[in-house]
Amino acid sequence: MESMRWNGDSLELLDQTKLPKALEYIHCQDYRRVGLAIKRLEVRGAPAIGAAAAYGVVLGAQEVVKDADFREKVAVIAEELRQTRPTAVNLFWAIDRMMACLDACDADMANDAVAVKLEEEAKVIEELDREVNRSMSEHGATLFTEPVSILTHCNAGALATVAYGTALGVIRQAHAEGHVVRVFADETRPLLQGARLTAWELNEDGIPVTLITDNMAGWVMKQKKVQAVIVGADRITSNGDVANKIGTYSVAVLAKEHGIPFYVAAPMSTFDWTMESGDEIPIEERDADEVKHVYGVQTAPLDIDVFNPAFDVTPHEYVAAIITEKGIIHNPNKETMARFKKEKM
Amino acid sequence: MESMRWNGDSLELLDQTKLPKALEYIHCQDYRRVGLAIKRLEVRGAPAIGAAAAYGVVLGAQEVVKDADFREKVAVIAEELRQTRPTAVNLFWAIDRMMACLDACDADMANDAVAVKLEEEAKVIEELDREVNRSMSEHGATLFTEPVSILTHCNAGALATVAYGTALGVIRQAHAEGHVVRVFADETRPLLQGARLTAWELNEDGIPVTLITDNMAGWVMKQKKVQAVIVGADRITSNGDVANKIGTYSVAVLAKEHGIPFYVAAPMSTFDWTMESGDEIPIEERDADEVKHVYGVQTAPLDIDVFNPAFDVTPHEYVAAIITEKGIIHNPNKETMARFKKEKM
Repeated sequence: MESMRWNGDSLELLDQTKLPKALEYIHCQDYRRVGLAIKRLEVRGAPAIGAAAAYGVVLGAQEVVKDADFREKVAVIAEELRQTRPTAVNLFWAIDRMMACLDACDADMANDAVAVKLEEEAKVIEELDREVNRSMSEHGATLFTEPVSILTHCNAGALATVAYGTALGVIRQAHAEGHVVRVFADETRPLLQGARLTAWELNEDGIPVTLITDNMAGWVMKQKKVQAVIVGADRITSNGDVANKIGTYSVAVLAKEHGIPFYVAAPMSTFDWTMESGDEIPIEERDADEVKHVYGVQTAPLDIDVFNPAFDVTPHEYVAAIITEKGIIHNPNKETMARFKKEKM
Repeated sequence: MESMRWNGDSLELLDQTKLPKALEYIHCQDYRRVGLAIKRLEVRGAPAIGAAAAYGVVLGAQEVVKDADFREKVAVIAEELRQTRPTAVNLFWAIDRMMACLDACDADMANDAVAVKLEEEAKVIEELDREVNRSMSEHGATLFTEPVSILTHCNAGALATVAYGTALGVIRQAHAEGHVVRVFADETRPLLQGARLTAWELNEDGIPVTLITDNMAGWVMKQKKVQAVIVGADRITSNGDVANKIGTYSVAVLAKEHGIPFYVAAPMSTFDWTMESGDEIPIEERDADEVKHVYGVQTAPLDIDVFNPAFDVTPHEYVAAIITEKGIIHNPNKETMARFKKEKM
């Protein structure tokens, strides 16, 4: 299962808004369509957004390759793609890498050669995501030494990445090792990524999954149906605070109350060392209509006030461990994070 | 706003599955239609179910009034209505009252006279609910001495009762006294009673309301947007444990973590003194399709496992106070509950 395919001059994006009813790809022939897909959540999940945006820069570069002010135009396109979503840091990480690649090209290098370099860099970003997820999954699976059931929120799976997934990557690996009995998937309102994507993705892979509404998570824990929680992340600050899909914080509080470890699986490209704590993370607020509708069907009075933050921040005190491609950070805080950074980066 | 109207030989039930898009009444001409309405949740909310079932018994009695085995038939009809839903205790309380009324009629009383007695008793139950809610609301409002914002879950409003409401009754009264800034309403998946009913009901009354998805409750508390929680109840055991709509337990845990008082507003007909704790309460599990659909629109793969408990149990340790028509039980537990029972019943 792959969320995107690069064709050399276009990007195919699996339309995640159509799942699970239809498996359709969007044929992006220019960077504008890639940007639109990110805004519309047709592609979503922090690592997937990063890789898609990198290819967006490539499509932009190919479009202006004959222009005299090629490099300036690519920079403007990159900036446009950077504005598509505010919370996931991998987006900025990927675009920064693409711009560093551009800057590293000699001033006298021909535009088409630069465009080829950019394409190579995007492929590296894509390939890196596959490797990172594999490696993260292997590290994460070591946390499970006997069969458990695991609760997850939103979709941090193959669909949220280029392939394999972060939280679901760990679950896939632990399942392959015989240590996952069942996954409980929060449906994750308002956009139902858990119901539409996680339930579908795990079911396709033959991993036992039970779908619940978000408000059942506490009762599932109370009834001892799960022994661990794993989620992904959109941004992790230098003290270990975690921005992730709205509802993650509630799950973390519930896990703490029930003595259940709460794990976060995320590539190091999710780490934002420039921020001291989660208080600094900008939280995207999305359209009220998302809460008043499901799939275009009205579920509430239309003239009602709505609060619709797309993310929340889970303070590091609630996080038992952060699982990365370079190892596991137990009890993340300012000190353990700094030590990990020093040792691994 | 009233959830039902008795016409002497039929019961009009506000069809709560149609709200907020349409305000339609179901014309119940026999007890079977009343039972169906309870099962289908066209009428829902513990006190409303109780009153509707009482009128169901009256319709049943009117139907068999000419039969020789009238009283046996009424008993069978009452038993059929008792089976419509398993968790809300007010249903059994109302039916028990109706059967006690039947039993209190002299053996030589004519059937039609007995039917009239039953109708009078159902009217008493209906009227009692109005009075109880008014009284409960006045007691509850004393908990608020300065303006606060309040979070509620599901619908414990006029729609869940004959009129005025339990949790929303308290909110209405506190708002009238100038002590409610805003209500945050959890949408309450799977059946969206918060989005469809609570948001609508408060909006109609001009009480400021903000709709959120269930998984936002923790983040709303973390951001200090609410200073109290009030919910209703379907059954309260003698130690103060509270069965209520699924998700209530999660909200209670979140409130505890944020130092926010968690209040339950419920008439004493909700109290089940026969049960020592919430562990004994049967929890209704409903059809998986409710979780896989919203308003008939598919939201998840159809071949997926689902867990769909309609209720959960909040242990009394999480409950700051239970608000009843006879006063407030602070820190409910076996002792405080027993004392209240002794003093007030």
